[in-house]
Amino acid sequence: MDIDVKKSAPVGVFDSGVGGLTVAREIMRHLPNENIVYFGDTARVPYGSKSKDNIIRYSRQIIHFLKTKGVKAIVIACNTASALALDVVREESDIPIIGVVEPGARAALETTKTRKIGVIGTEGTIRSAMYEKIIQGIDPEATVIGKACPLFVPLVEEGFAKHRVTQEIIDYYLASFLETDIDSLILGCTHYPLLRSRIREYVGEKITLVNPAYETAMDLKQLLKARGIENMDTRQEHAAYSFYVSDAADKFKQFANSILPYDIETTKQINIEEY
Amino acid sequence: MDIDVKKSAPVGVFDSGVGGLTVAREIMRHLPNENIVYFGDTARVPYGSKSKDNIIRYSRQIIHFLKTKGVKAIVIACNTASALALDVVREESDIPIIGVVEPGARAALETTKTRKIGVIGTEGTIRSAMYEKIIQGIDPEATVIGKACPLFVPLVEEGFAKHRVTQEIIDYYLASFLETDIDSLILGCTHYPLLRSRIREYVGEKITLVNPAYETAMDLKQLLKARGIENMDTRQEHAAYSFYVSDAADKFKQFANSILPYDIETTKQINIEEY
Repeated sequence: MDIDVKKSAPVGVFDSGVGGLTVAREIMRHLPNENIVYFGDTARVPYGSKSKDNIIRYSRQIIHFLKTKGVKAIVIACNTASALALDVVREESDIPIIGVVEPGARAALETTKTRKIGVIGTEGTIRSAMYEKIIQGIDPEATVIGKACPLFVPLVEEGFAKHRVTQEIIDYYLASFLETDIDSLILGCTHYPLLRSRIREYVGEKITLVNPAYETAMDLKQLLKARGIENMDTRQEHAAYSFYVSDAADKFKQFANSILPYDIETTKQINIEEY
Repeated sequence: MDIDVKKSAPVGVFDSGVGGLTVAREIMRHLPNENIVYFGDTARVPYGSKSKDNIIRYSRQIIHFLKTKGVKAIVIACNTASALALDVVREESDIPIIGVVEPGARAALETTKTRKIGVIGTEGTIRSAMYEKIIQGIDPEATVIGKACPLFVPLVEEGFAKHRVTQEIIDYYLASFLETDIDSLILGCTHYPLLRSRIREYVGEKITLVNPAYETAMDLKQLLKARGIENMDTRQEHAAYSFYVSDAADKFKQFANSILPYDIETTKQINIEEY
């Protein structure tokens, strides 16, 4: 491939739905020249309660789709898919693939002083214990306490982020953390930054919330630089962003416009089962 | 097909996940000779927030799968798929297919005195206004008030049916019904019977809760009789029931055993995208 073509090639970003837009947003902010092709698997969302086998199969189909768009690298902007499928799909791929779990784990280790770290995420992410494996691979003496919070995703998706019941459900899931001496809590699901201020209020100042999205954008930057495939073209006013989903493009667009710093114009729907 | 073979052929029952087991349970109770093949689309659950196009596509794949099991009739035990896909798939099929919306609508009309009926369901079911269309097709002067309750399914699936927050969410969704003079409320989603006692407590004695599951079993009975394909074989101790899912068979089995009157032994996982 021509090296210039490769540099201007887009980065593929995918998630089970809209949550990964919180990662895309960080890439847009910190790598403003990079073109992005985003895919949200809204036909099969959520991933958090589904099995490893299916998450691997879904990830393979999506990577196949993104490759048809000529992407030069892929970011799995979904904690569940990063935890359950990254190892397998990275092995199979001829382009670099990164997830959100490794960057999140490193960010938590840089934050903690007590070396006691909490992780909240979907059932699949917590059951995989992937944050624990990576954190303890770097610092074997660190302690990791995980807690699955399966209702957080539907609460965000149904617009309950600011509703009173959400505070009660936060209390239900996070009360046990208050009795520990964790000083760092990883928001291990891309929907959770949308509950950030509520969670912050609940856990207080002693615990720092870690959002893997920023760290992931930094990892991507370093990766593109190391391989000499950064997009240096600053002529365009802003980079090109395309959005694809497997279901209900209009609903996605509406949600996306509440998360992203600018309004997206078109979202295309594809049949991901064909890939 | 040999007429005897046809009579002993199973009935296919499908849903997006476990909710349809509340319909299967009524069939087991009231048509005890009928063999059943149940399919739960746990890889793509929930259906309630997804588009008509995809729900039709999913329903076609499942009907295709059930036909490979030699079913003599199919029950769509999912309100969303009944509301969005039944008309289309019934037209295409050479075996009879019934849904849960028509039986539920008729049951509500038999119950109401004020001719004012409430319906709760998923976003897809309520947006389709299918209950309203069917009810007003029978009684043009009946009034139907629909309300989507998208958090009820995750609350049930995550085991919050008895938790305090569920009461608050019931209040959030159903408060507006208390100011109307509906006297009949259709539980228009197969998960909702699992919240029945909480909803009953909230709406009080003036409003009768209508669960389409029983009526659906009665419709199936009538249909099989009319076509002369009832299973008359009473020699077996109980009929044969098989369970298939598209994801995480173990999790399904656990939930199923809390709903069904007997413990199911095996659940098989298949790749529904291949059908």
